[in-house]
Amino acid sequence: MSASGLGLIDHIGIAVEDLDQAVRLYKDKLGMPEQHRETVEEQGVEAVLLEIGDGHVELLSPLSPETAVGRFLERHGPGMHHVAYRTEDIEASLEAARTAGLRLIDEEPRIGIRGSRVAFLHPKSTGGVLTELVEPAEGVR
Amino acid sequence: MSASGLGLIDHIGIAVEDLDQAVRLYKDKLGMPEQHRETVEEQGVEAVLLEIGDGHVELLSPLSPETAVGRFLERHGPGMHHVAYRTEDIEASLEAARTAGLRLIDEEPRIGIRGSRVAFLHPKSTGGVLTELVEPAEGVR
Repeated sequence: MSASGLGLIDHIGIAVEDLDQAVRLYKDKLGMPEQHRETVEEQGVEAVLLEIGDGHVELLSPLSPETAVGRFLERHGPGMHHVAYRTEDIEASLEAARTAGLRLIDEEPRIGIRGSRVAFLHPKSTGGVLTELVEPAEGVR
Repeated sequence: MSASGLGLIDHIGIAVEDLDQAVRLYKDKLGMPEQHRETVEEQGVEAVLLEIGDGHVELLSPLSPETAVGRFLERHGPGMHHVAYRTEDIEASLEAARTAGLRLIDEEPRIGIRGSRVAFLHPKSTGGVLTELVEPAEGVR
């Protein structure tokens, strides 16, 4: 456990154009079991989690072109969108990031997929990497 | 352990312009201990591994603009470059990828950082994500 409480790579978020095709790639060709599917309206995505060790691949399909992931696809095409680090205490980790002078997208944690609590750090202060802190819901990993 | 033997997210590879500045970001601001530093001539990078759980953040600084990471920086700027999944048997995982019809960058494993054996899959067949398979050297994780 690090000073800011980040415990492991929880997932990488991948922007995709065709969700079912991407699920087949990760499930059938790379052998990762599909674990969860959810529409996260607040983030404007339909998301699928696939299992890889204690972490996940999170496939993100935009609900419309005007969403953050829709704009990402328009600019960059499909590919890696963000990385998420797991914490047991998102308030403490977010406070550590704030104290370290990192620019926050979320000043307070909000609800993410599967009832997790999440907060994003701005890529401008993290070397171009959109970085998420995630505290899983009780009993979920 | 999945069908193709991919066990966990071993690391994410991040292209950086200023290696020391990036190390300070991950070490001092995100609290990840620095674990290893190595010049990998074959890949044209100076690389630093930072510890996060059982995995790593791998910072990649190009040795020259004509390297793969140098060209990536020129085109995209700093940011996520690849994701690596750990396997205990890289031959088997690479063969599974080949059998699944994925396009391989490396037909055979080659030596990566810290004596690991690695093979890259082409992003054209993995949804725009440069994907690495990595088998750590004996006794290294």
